[in-house]
Amino acid sequence: MEKITPRTLSGFMELLPEKQALMDRITDTIRRVYSLYGFTPLDTPLIESSEVLLAKGGGETEKQIYRFTKGDSDLSLRFDLTVPLAKYVAMNYSKLAFPFRRYQIGKVYRGERAQRGRFREFYQADIDIIGDGSLDIMNEAEIPSIIYRLFTQLGISRFVIRVNNRRLLTGFYEMLGLSDKSGGIMRTVDKLEKIGPGRVRSLLTDELGLDPEKAGEILDFISISGSNSSVLAALEAYRGRSAAFDAGLSELAAVAGHLSAFGVPEENFALDLTIARGLDYYTGTVYETKLLDHPEVGSVCSGGRYDDLAGFYTDKKLPGVGISIGLTRLFFVLDDMGLLSEDLPTAPADVLILPMIDDMSPAVELATLLRSRGIRAQLYSEPKKFKARMAYANRLRVPFAAIIGEDEASRGLVGLKDMASGAQEALSPAECADRVLSALERCRDIRPVKG
Amino acid sequence: MEKITPRTLSGFMELLPEKQALMDRITDTIRRVYSLYGFTPLDTPLIESSEVLLAKGGGETEKQIYRFTKGDSDLSLRFDLTVPLAKYVAMNYSKLAFPFRRYQIGKVYRGERAQRGRFREFYQADIDIIGDGSLDIMNEAEIPSIIYRLFTQLGISRFVIRVNNRRLLTGFYEMLGLSDKSGGIMRTVDKLEKIGPGRVRSLLTDELGLDPEKAGEILDFISISGSNSSVLAALEAYRGRSAAFDAGLSELAAVAGHLSAFGVPEENFALDLTIARGLDYYTGTVYETKLLDHPEVGSVCSGGRYDDLAGFYTDKKLPGVGISIGLTRLFFVLDDMGLLSEDLPTAPADVLILPMIDDMSPAVELATLLRSRGIRAQLYSEPKKFKARMAYANRLRVPFAAIIGEDEASRGLVGLKDMASGAQEALSPAECADRVLSALERCRDIRPVKG
Repeated sequence: MEKITPRTLSGFMELLPEKQALMDRITDTIRRVYSLYGFTPLDTPLIESSEVLLAKGGGETEKQIYRFTKGDSDLSLRFDLTVPLAKYVAMNYSKLAFPFRRYQIGKVYRGERAQRGRFREFYQADIDIIGDGSLDIMNEAEIPSIIYRLFTQLGISRFVIRVNNRRLLTGFYEMLGLSDKSGGIMRTVDKLEKIGPGRVRSLLTDELGLDPEKAGEILDFISISGSNSSVLAALEAYRGRSAAFDAGLSELAAVAGHLSAFGVPEENFALDLTIARGLDYYTGTVYETKLLDHPEVGSVCSGGRYDDLAGFYTDKKLPGVGISIGLTRLFFVLDDMGLLSEDLPTAPADVLILPMIDDMSPAVELATLLRSRGIRAQLYSEPKKFKARMAYANRLRVPFAAIIGEDEASRGLVGLKDMASGAQEALSPAECADRVLSALERCRDIRPVKG
Repeated sequence: MEKITPRTLSGFMELLPEKQALMDRITDTIRRVYSLYGFTPLDTPLIESSEVLLAKGGGETEKQIYRFTKGDSDLSLRFDLTVPLAKYVAMNYSKLAFPFRRYQIGKVYRGERAQRGRFREFYQADIDIIGDGSLDIMNEAEIPSIIYRLFTQLGISRFVIRVNNRRLLTGFYEMLGLSDKSGGIMRTVDKLEKIGPGRVRSLLTDELGLDPEKAGEILDFISISGSNSSVLAALEAYRGRSAAFDAGLSELAAVAGHLSAFGVPEENFALDLTIARGLDYYTGTVYETKLLDHPEVGSVCSGGRYDDLAGFYTDKKLPGVGISIGLTRLFFVLDDMGLLSEDLPTAPADVLILPMIDDMSPAVELATLLRSRGIRAQLYSEPKKFKARMAYANRLRVPFAAIIGEDEASRGLVGLKDMASGAQEALSPAECADRVLSALERCRDIRPVKG
């Protein structure tokens, strides 16, 4: 028979078992942390009617969308989890309780140009809190604590959550009489880290046509930095000249003010007047999260406050705040930088049971006992030589092999071999389970990421 | 602004939060049980090259496939998890250790005619064990124990796993000199339960042109039933007339023989000579799982042994055994029949924290404490009246509300209200956590399905 060469499309991540186990551990951690904050899980279709999905229309994303027809239907694959959320909330408005807090971890599709580290199918892991008409600032204050707990639980310690406020920026540009140019200015200022203050200044004057004096004021403003309290103190000096600025400053102060009660150390948090997030969608607090040792990666968890989630579907005013993790890219980057843990057990089983005798009953009974105690046990039943069996155990990286030979079987025992140390001991099945459980207990706190 | 009516495509399941929480619980249970048996998680793309996905070509499924082009690429959405597995194993053959045991829970797509209870996007939850060249019969014997544990853990008790062997059937038809008609006969016999023995007999004689005598022998054969040992004893009478039959009978006996060591009670297991599974793909043991009180639903977990997983991609002989659960349909059916538990907590949080004072600090500190102890806590910060807050708590069905009023705050306490009983008690934050944890402990064993 002629063979078709099996292949996976480029831009689509498909992992080998060990890496997949790590990816799953990361996903589980995200799910657990999101759940701790009272977010409910949501699952929406990968496919939506194009009319619904592209209601907002236009934009750069549209060219990247996987769009096709099936029968009479014009269909598209979702390109983010926000539009499906807007659809869901608008559709089910009367059945939901607000604030509605949901998390969703799911695949989205963008037909980007294929290149290393860029994916066409990738997981996003989002949370959003949606209010009905209004949403208190405390929700925005809580978000950094979620990011902090999540990254810490993943094993990442050297990161900083950078926070700014769009209202504050809008108000500042209003003071300077530059409201009509605020979009362009924010996009320019956003490049500060990449191109430096000199280039930002000349872009402001040459491309946007600003007075050198006003460009100077902007550069002074965005260079305000330091501890949270010193940044807030410096900003207080501008108070009273723009209602938007004052409101934004109060919000920023509120977000920073609850940090310690929320358990976020100051070193993992920074007020940063340079970040604005590209999207016009955001209207208040905005967040970015940077890996301190790998600034080149950019933000690995971003989001912000928006005033109008579902304006394309409903007249209801649905303000919200949310963050999103580009999980597939984050995983790729962590792996690429060698930051994934090598200590986390990734074997498919905790114990590989190796019956060396014809009678399989003691092996089956051991497997049943171990599983009933929550231990992942694989029964190996292929008629292979001992050496091949041990090679298999090593390849799977199982922590324990349970060997049942003539001698063990006749005494009702099991030869439990610790694969790391090579030590083997004859134990009763129950002792075997105890031994494995305490070893698992010791591994419980190993985190998926090293750094 | 003109609005687009938000809607979800028909044939695509999208659940409200409570139902989604139940669905997630079921998915988690499946994942946990599959893991106990040493299966490694796998995740493959939703989209594959059409050339690869449809290598096997033809068949009824092909018309149902979501196929489209993007740029120059001819792409298709996966319609099951078996073809992607075949691709994965063939592609990564040298990097995998065999037997390769994987589970995969993921969405698949079939453009079926839309009708109630039929889905175009649905989850399958599969396990497969793939051997390299050969695979021991013990793997087939283990499968019923996995199904048994899974259904029991879900909360379903009234079910039976029906097992047969295709080799045994092939051998039997060989004895009757009907090898060339065995496919047609198996498809006819498969209808026994639906149309009864009389109709089966006339289909065999009229449509397939069998002698009435041979049709009689077939009906005698498939009416063999009773306890496992009596079925096996009746089958022994046929031994010695066909090598295929004898091999199939030995396999069937081996599968039945390990049941009790694997912990499967006889009432949940039946040798059933009428089942064959439609697909020609299966070559040995075949499985179906029926809900005893709802036979109309058909098999909710099916599969079997196959000799050649990936013949379209590789010359390697890769025999395997697997089962698949049509999870979306199973969930729909359980819900439709009112079998989903009403006792399982589905609230997004265990505790809703209601600060009734301006100072949010005690509320934030309580939230942080509860979360650090693994309790899902939601901080309610909207400036609403007490009655509206309690209505929200009731709508979310949270088990506890933690009320912090002037009085509690001044004493460093929390008013913990048990939402079911209405009882409220002033407790320290730590006592509050203890109280909630012990209540959660009591809910731990509630299963997602009633029946």
